[in-house]
Amino acid sequence: MELKFNAPGKLMLALFLVFGLSGCQALSGPDSRPDIMGTGDLGLIVERATGSVLVINTSRHEVLGRIEGLGDLSHASVVYSRDARYGYVFGRDGGLTKVDLLSQSIVDRVIQSGNSIGGAISQDGRYVAVSNYEPGGVKVFDSQTLELVADVPATYTSGHGETGQSKTVGLVDAPGNLFVFSLFEAGEIWTLDMSDKSAEITRFEAGESPYDALITPDGRYYIAGLFGEDGLSMLDMWNPGQGVTEILPGYGKGEQKLPVYKMPHLEGWAIADGRAFVPAVGHHQVLVADMTDWSLVDRIPVQGQPVFVMASPDNRRIWVSFAHPDNDVVQVIDSQTREIVRTLEPGEAVLHMEFTPRGEEVWVSARDSNRVTVYNTRTLEPVATLSAEKPSGIFFTSRAHALGL
Amino acid sequence: MELKFNAPGKLMLALFLVFGLSGCQALSGPDSRPDIMGTGDLGLIVERATGSVLVINTSRHEVLGRIEGLGDLSHASVVYSRDARYGYVFGRDGGLTKVDLLSQSIVDRVIQSGNSIGGAISQDGRYVAVSNYEPGGVKVFDSQTLELVADVPATYTSGHGETGQSKTVGLVDAPGNLFVFSLFEAGEIWTLDMSDKSAEITRFEAGESPYDALITPDGRYYIAGLFGEDGLSMLDMWNPGQGVTEILPGYGKGEQKLPVYKMPHLEGWAIADGRAFVPAVGHHQVLVADMTDWSLVDRIPVQGQPVFVMASPDNRRIWVSFAHPDNDVVQVIDSQTREIVRTLEPGEAVLHMEFTPRGEEVWVSARDSNRVTVYNTRTLEPVATLSAEKPSGIFFTSRAHALGL
Repeated sequence: MELKFNAPGKLMLALFLVFGLSGCQALSGPDSRPDIMGTGDLGLIVERATGSVLVINTSRHEVLGRIEGLGDLSHASVVYSRDARYGYVFGRDGGLTKVDLLSQSIVDRVIQSGNSIGGAISQDGRYVAVSNYEPGGVKVFDSQTLELVADVPATYTSGHGETGQSKTVGLVDAPGNLFVFSLFEAGEIWTLDMSDKSAEITRFEAGESPYDALITPDGRYYIAGLFGEDGLSMLDMWNPGQGVTEILPGYGKGEQKLPVYKMPHLEGWAIADGRAFVPAVGHHQVLVADMTDWSLVDRIPVQGQPVFVMASPDNRRIWVSFAHPDNDVVQVIDSQTREIVRTLEPGEAVLHMEFTPRGEEVWVSARDSNRVTVYNTRTLEPVATLSAEKPSGIFFTSRAHALGL
Repeated sequence: MELKFNAPGKLMLALFLVFGLSGCQALSGPDSRPDIMGTGDLGLIVERATGSVLVINTSRHEVLGRIEGLGDLSHASVVYSRDARYGYVFGRDGGLTKVDLLSQSIVDRVIQSGNSIGGAISQDGRYVAVSNYEPGGVKVFDSQTLELVADVPATYTSGHGETGQSKTVGLVDAPGNLFVFSLFEAGEIWTLDMSDKSAEITRFEAGESPYDALITPDGRYYIAGLFGEDGLSMLDMWNPGQGVTEILPGYGKGEQKLPVYKMPHLEGWAIADGRAFVPAVGHHQVLVADMTDWSLVDRIPVQGQPVFVMASPDNRRIWVSFAHPDNDVVQVIDSQTREIVRTLEPGEAVLHMEFTPRGEEVWVSARDSNRVTVYNTRTLEPVATLSAEKPSGIFFTSRAHALGL
């Protein structure tokens, strides 16, 4: 063993090196049965135009197979069973499809509404909830059988005295086996407690026309964006009795000077170093808010209107995707200096980014290039590309273990 | 659909209920081949006296099988491959054993030192590092083949001019494909960069006799406890050029008035609501520190000397286990009010606690009762018990996706 000092407090090691690995890690064992494998490094890529999903392996950067027949997958999203074997795909056409990543096939499929916009799986993994636009409301299904367990129509009475079912948005799971969602027409946030058979609902005033929402990674703060007024509505799940409070009062259309091509996604908000990095609405900026009092502390200029503003799992960098017509690049911001460190060009119409759970790589979909590019998050260089048909959302099975995704 | 209002802003829903589920969720599909399953809800329980591990399923609260022949498993710990299929078990006798959770068998086993104390897997899953007491140093293995990749002897020169290999402790993985560990005799913290073949080492002065360490969940702060002096040594991985700083200067033996039965584990530190909940050394207290300046803000009286102080994944409650002779109970603290909300009695000699990844349940091992008890974290009531031979550490496969565990 020879140690060579090249700087005070720093040394290079002449290593006993057996760096014989190639660029990817193969799964151990030459199993002849391909359906025997761990499911921790698998995922699904939504192919929105063809109603199909690709089953992928993140260790090998490989497509394992394609599952077809999932209907209209525009704006589709996925949650996973707690064993990380089954994906629940929420289609735009009201379809809820349960797919098996091991056999790469559809296990079950129900058309549960006319138009849906995402869903969630309960903390205990027993229930899958779907957020519906048409006819509105939320439906809850047994995650094993896809049998209907609870139907929450989200009925409201308008200012004109008419009753109807509200569109629901921003549906997430929360600790205590809750689901939380927002009612667009009713201007409310509801919690649905699935911890026992009473399935109690609690209602909160939320402001005008909530259009999307997020919950912080520990499940404490539920934050809804408002289409009808400025500011954001926040519900502290630890202190629900305090009701909804307004944060970032200037946020939204009030500061809008450019046409808004796409309302930014709230799911992707980055929280790093006590600061929330937030997509500005209609501006070429990422906003930085102090989470202790939710005051605006900085505005970071970026090259377009941000859609997703996501922190890598180590919070070290913030990755930003953009709305049309500036949607062919991704910008990477240092969360400490708040400077842009790299502008990447993954292809045309970048729609989504998904980090591997420990953050060493990120997968980026470019719809109009029919391509998914994998970047090393340290070097910011591409390490693999995969072909996909009009890829949109990318969802790894590690989501099975995270709250609020 | 009938809505019954029972309080302003609150309603009970007469549900379309199909609550036909029993108390546990069975895996879908009557697969006749038991090795075809998702690996997201599996785990290992160390049976320290018999050199065996139990493979368990957290959805069904079931033991799937026992793997024997792992040597001396006192103080053993486990990390997982990134596909969540293989566990790497670090035994006290220097044994590194790779087990397959699907086939419930040993894949490979090497005796890599005379005495070891835990290990880590690199961010990219390619390397497994082991921390050694005898002869000291750190060895790094290919996670697929268990071939030796790097040997870091951790050589140091004592005050008397003698050279030797330092015992290493507190070995964790960190972002950028680093390993970080502390050298007990040398009083240093070293980082080992496994992102390329140079395997560069960087050294930092760390204070006298670091005995254990933790890294915060985002991989930013590495904090080492010191046996030889008061205070804790913290390395900011975002700003390593600033070197190690001292935090909580009064922490440690200086405030010790009772005999110390066991130095508390640092891995288990809870971080909730901007506060770190820290086991006091030799006192019947949990300390609360403000993470912005690491000042001590509170002392919570508990019933014994704390060993593990762990936050549930939602940070809502702090779970505390204790050193001998008060080690037959677990106390649960509300992280907001800082009051003890329940004292549980899981059995004799409670050694470890492991939360399911989304926090709905926690598994608690009671060595001298040969029992593992599963608690619902919401009701704090037991929901299942499993028999185990002198169980100690409990490790779920979701650790495959977490930094620094």
